[in-house]
Amino acid sequence: MSDQSNRRRSGGRAARRAARSEAAQEAVPFLTRSMPPVEVVSEEGLVVIEDNAETILEEVGIDFQEYPRALELLGSAGAQVDGERVRFPRGMCREIVGASAPSTYTHHARNPARSVQVGGDATVFVPSYGSPFVHDLDDGRRYATIEDFNNFVKLAYQSPHLHLSGGTVCEPVDVPVSKRHLDMVYAHLRYSDKPFMGSVTAAERAQDTVDMAKLVFGDEFVEANTVVTSLINASSPMAWDATMLGAADVYAQHNQATMLSPFILAGAMAPVTVAGVAAQTLAEALAGMTFVQVVRPGAPMIFGSFASSMSMQTGAPTFGTPEPALVLYTVAALARRLGLPFRSGGSLCASKIPDAQAAAESMATLVPTVMAGVNFVLHAAGWLEGGLAMGYEKFVIDADQCGLMARFMNGVDLSDNGQAMAAIRETGPGQHFLGSAHTLENFESAFARSEVANNDSFEQWSEEGSLDAAQRANGIWKKMLADYQAPALDEAADEALGEFMKRRGAEIPDAFA
Amino acid sequence: MSDQSNRRRSGGRAARRAARSEAAQEAVPFLTRSMPPVEVVSEEGLVVIEDNAETILEEVGIDFQEYPRALELLGSAGAQVDGERVRFPRGMCREIVGASAPSTYTHHARNPARSVQVGGDATVFVPSYGSPFVHDLDDGRRYATIEDFNNFVKLAYQSPHLHLSGGTVCEPVDVPVSKRHLDMVYAHLRYSDKPFMGSVTAAERAQDTVDMAKLVFGDEFVEANTVVTSLINASSPMAWDATMLGAADVYAQHNQATMLSPFILAGAMAPVTVAGVAAQTLAEALAGMTFVQVVRPGAPMIFGSFASSMSMQTGAPTFGTPEPALVLYTVAALARRLGLPFRSGGSLCASKIPDAQAAAESMATLVPTVMAGVNFVLHAAGWLEGGLAMGYEKFVIDADQCGLMARFMNGVDLSDNGQAMAAIRETGPGQHFLGSAHTLENFESAFARSEVANNDSFEQWSEEGSLDAAQRANGIWKKMLADYQAPALDEAADEALGEFMKRRGAEIPDAFA
Repeated sequence: MSDQSNRRRSGGRAARRAARSEAAQEAVPFLTRSMPPVEVVSEEGLVVIEDNAETILEEVGIDFQEYPRALELLGSAGAQVDGERVRFPRGMCREIVGASAPSTYTHHARNPARSVQVGGDATVFVPSYGSPFVHDLDDGRRYATIEDFNNFVKLAYQSPHLHLSGGTVCEPVDVPVSKRHLDMVYAHLRYSDKPFMGSVTAAERAQDTVDMAKLVFGDEFVEANTVVTSLINASSPMAWDATMLGAADVYAQHNQATMLSPFILAGAMAPVTVAGVAAQTLAEALAGMTFVQVVRPGAPMIFGSFASSMSMQTGAPTFGTPEPALVLYTVAALARRLGLPFRSGGSLCASKIPDAQAAAESMATLVPTVMAGVNFVLHAAGWLEGGLAMGYEKFVIDADQCGLMARFMNGVDLSDNGQAMAAIRETGPGQHFLGSAHTLENFESAFARSEVANNDSFEQWSEEGSLDAAQRANGIWKKMLADYQAPALDEAADEALGEFMKRRGAEIPDAFA
Repeated sequence: MSDQSNRRRSGGRAARRAARSEAAQEAVPFLTRSMPPVEVVSEEGLVVIEDNAETILEEVGIDFQEYPRALELLGSAGAQVDGERVRFPRGMCREIVGASAPSTYTHHARNPARSVQVGGDATVFVPSYGSPFVHDLDDGRRYATIEDFNNFVKLAYQSPHLHLSGGTVCEPVDVPVSKRHLDMVYAHLRYSDKPFMGSVTAAERAQDTVDMAKLVFGDEFVEANTVVTSLINASSPMAWDATMLGAADVYAQHNQATMLSPFILAGAMAPVTVAGVAAQTLAEALAGMTFVQVVRPGAPMIFGSFASSMSMQTGAPTFGTPEPALVLYTVAALARRLGLPFRSGGSLCASKIPDAQAAAESMATLVPTVMAGVNFVLHAAGWLEGGLAMGYEKFVIDADQCGLMARFMNGVDLSDNGQAMAAIRETGPGQHFLGSAHTLENFESAFARSEVANNDSFEQWSEEGSLDAAQRANGIWKKMLADYQAPALDEAADEALGEFMKRRGAEIPDAFA
């Protein structure tokens, strides 16, 4: 059968692409590494950093701000409480966390085929989180709306390379801040069937998240299983605030997962050195995770770390630089030594637009993320401008790279087919391999395919409009949204969600700040 | 002293940048890794691949095309010669190469402060090589000229992040092909004082390279030391051609270094699998390196590897994909086991322009290059369009990333200053580190600085014209060329070079193909 007849029958390149795209939708729910994680610090070095973290916990202490319950619980568990300052005897946090925190957990999706393992040799890619702005090539940068939020949930649902539909994929600033968590949680439950992240901006919003999840997953299921993983940021340096503690408290009580994440702009919220940032990150995370374990021993948790460097001229955060990559490798090793799931990295950049700076910085973060064995990759797609903007084209470009990284993680195939000695014998010196039986047999799956890259000749590329990667990505997200079809949701559950939102919407006063 | 008075005295931001740029010129001549290289294949897996390479050498054989001297020398050394096909008894190549090839060598620059170590824990970044086209934002893509060639030599000389001024940084197609090697070698000797690469397009051009180097370094120095490293590509699969063998022969006789590089577009010149490409690469390189060592035992060599994947739709080469990265890690490990310097990687991409595709693909190659411990990083800066074009802006963007990678290679500082416990004690919970003594002491050197990235606020960036990375790079290379000052060259040597070129130019007939 010639290429030509094949093309006629099947509808040509577009049809083949569609077929591939369908196949891609059958992607695995999470990735499994086959390679050992990269270590950049020796074991002795890691012991020094761990010892420094214990010194911070014991001598400097961690503030638990305006949350008396944390002081009571931690005091009862053996910490010394002085006002809001909590000092932990050497080894206390490590012992409590080590005794009860699970090394892996299952984060259930409403579609069981999309449930993910968090921790161990599993990796999940998750959209960016928390941007007040969105950016696209058509309208530039503007405040995000609930329509943008829904769009990014739909895009994450459609991407075979992202494993969660995310959390606050952008801040829908057109909805009152006091109510927007309802719309956000609804979007994740309605427009996607992938796992999602819950609200953390107040304890009662965390409770609303749990309650809404129960309307879809069922009461008993939620109390017995993890259906949301939520981002609990520290108020670095060395403090946790009442808002985050309150949300963590609610989630832990319901056995839902929390991601305790020191949030460090090195030089401002921590020392300017990698080892200093790592020790402080470990101390802060241990303190936060100890709180969660005393609330509910065994509640699933992720050791989180977010670290950026800064411009020493302007104080602006910088991304994709060597120091945060070194922090990432170092803290990943510390998390492994604790036996806990680890969150860090992503596709971080300072660029305002999806240009070469954005891509270089993002890759300088994403590749270490993968090599370090990060389990939960928040900010894997969409991040622009230090997190201030969620980019539509950036989302497409990043997700595409996540797909390539997934293939990298499979490592080297050393089967007989992988060794390909028959092909080498068959072909021999000076001949080409294009027609060899081995090449034809492996044709479809041999190489990972980028959906964004253009590999055509200069002439063909010019004829087709000389588009850059961002322009091609623009066409891709528009087509994805046009093609979007919502996953089925039980009608009764959808109605119950609507009623819940109506009731809570009436109870909660509007507030925009 | 306020910022303002500081600005007035020193001339402000521009002056501070200039001071930094001068400091950068004092960069180290080559990089020294402090971290172990990343391994992606187990030792047992590497043994399998080595065994397969021996099978290729023994049973399939390697062609040495139209170069009878190679057949004679290799036959005398113990290989079985059948026409142009040479089969090597198991272990023969490894034994010959292992017996005499140096594990590291010094590639001398005419400025001794810029001489580099090749091999071991040293890494050098070298500009791209061999493009017939150049690209810049002003004029787009066009054939390269000798002016472009000289420009790139000047840019590489000026960049603190590149350690050689390169070889065929682009093909000056306005100079007859039969003579252009004279102009290229002259440019490297005149416009730069960094180490450089020699001509390989004919044995007599290699000889001209050596003769011109002698006019600057002196006869005796060149015969006793390595002053050029030259790229000898295989005619993969499993063949070496007369042109490359002739050049390698001349260089080896003069104790100059050669880089024996299988050049593989997987799927066309090798099987489509990583382990297949790795075994074939090892076999081809071993055969070529064996030839060099029988020409002159002890001649310095680099084990080279160039591997790309291909689009299985169009047959076009693709870059920055996972498979070439896995090949890179695998072959780097094979070279380490041979105890030889290794060349691979760079900033490879298929993109026609310095956009997000170019940057993502380049970083997906450059980061593995660094993590794998590549010693000689050809194509580190400028590569566009699968090597068809050398980009001015791409060169600036890539060199900047090389600078960041250099900082990454320093690893984590675990000194007392690096641990920064005093800063953490001094600052404490809830305070910021900006004014701490430790921050102020480490202010200047704490974080690597990109020269291309923009970290300003969206508003400031917009006010300054909303430039993308390529547009900023455009300004940077123009300023570099405007600021260029040639390094001193002994007048007598310069005259001798001129006379040599005049004489050889008259002897050699013009030829453009």
